[in-house]
Amino acid sequence: MENLNQQIDFIMELDRLKAIQRRCRIKCDDNRFENSAEHSWHIALMAQVLSVYADEPVNLDRVVTMLLIHDIVEIDAGDTFAFDTAGQESTVDIEAEAADRIFGLLPEAQAKSYRTLWQEFEDAETADGRFAKAMDRMLPLLQNCRNEGGSWVEHDVSRSQVIKRNEYLKGLVPRLWDYALNEIDQATDKGWLKRD
Amino acid sequence: MENLNQQIDFIMELDRLKAIQRRCRIKCDDNRFENSAEHSWHIALMAQVLSVYADEPVNLDRVVTMLLIHDIVEIDAGDTFAFDTAGQESTVDIEAEAADRIFGLLPEAQAKSYRTLWQEFEDAETADGRFAKAMDRMLPLLQNCRNEGGSWVEHDVSRSQVIKRNEYLKGLVPRLWDYALNEIDQATDKGWLKRD
Repeated sequence: MENLNQQIDFIMELDRLKAIQRRCRIKCDDNRFENSAEHSWHIALMAQVLSVYADEPVNLDRVVTMLLIHDIVEIDAGDTFAFDTAGQESTVDIEAEAADRIFGLLPEAQAKSYRTLWQEFEDAETADGRFAKAMDRMLPLLQNCRNEGGSWVEHDVSRSQVIKRNEYLKGLVPRLWDYALNEIDQATDKGWLKRD
Repeated sequence: MENLNQQIDFIMELDRLKAIQRRCRIKCDDNRFENSAEHSWHIALMAQVLSVYADEPVNLDRVVTMLLIHDIVEIDAGDTFAFDTAGQESTVDIEAEAADRIFGLLPEAQAKSYRTLWQEFEDAETADGRFAKAMDRMLPLLQNCRNEGGSWVEHDVSRSQVIKRNEYLKGLVPRLWDYALNEIDQATDKGWLKRD
């Protein structure tokens, strides 16, 4: 029973990701902040729907799992705003420790497998890792563009910041890169992104 | 561009599942109601972690996709309480129409593929469908058992109702069936489930 008890502990620990708030807002639910659990669900499905546009072979099942687990470390580390570069850098070690602790709740082989996949997402060097990262970056862009600029307006974000953040699409998913650039230009024209 | 625009429309429609409230509560987030999007994320991961216990071969990637999409129809149909049998029956047609409309936002081949998989989950006759359904039933059990009975207590649910609802585990995942029965017995002893 030891393995099963460890697995149930891990599953119940996951509940806490539903309490982690992001900066992005849900337009259709009174514009409340999105949480990291529902966000993870959304990009996992988005990756499935859009994987046909990847120019390199992508293992979709690995990508989906990466996206399901990519934010779990926020249970310990909290969410850091996308455009808070200093904050992002300072949480690297905290997130690595969180990954050790949370995946470490599982039996050893499962823990290692998830921990390795999470690191691949973080490093974003393989095609799977880059595609997963690209999805994680593109969804808030779509959400903000359909919500009068959303978190961009609230935090005074610039066009070049959003372009830089979405560069994982470039080369790997050219059709979505073009789509994203067009959305960014429209958002800039509407004044939702600072022109720079 | 037509396909891509359809796909983006579908992805943005998904946002609305985050506004659908279930009866189950999130203990760690001020005991608020859970929504169907974060619930879908949670059981997709639960299925991955527990699939080793299935006694029949289960295609985990299909199961994960089933669980990611299984509640999407609630965008139109709303959530029906697990133990509202009359309500469950009366929403069958509404949910089927919702599946037609929402998956129908996608290009035809993708729409058909998701619609078929969703139906397989609903029918719960294949090993994949039964395993997915079993996960969907077992997670609220675990959540209620760790939250002083949660929605069971609020809605005066009985031991036999919970056993019946979790019978998808029986035969297919015997180890989890035993685990669930033990949890149910403990919950009954604590007075969280009506003895019958």
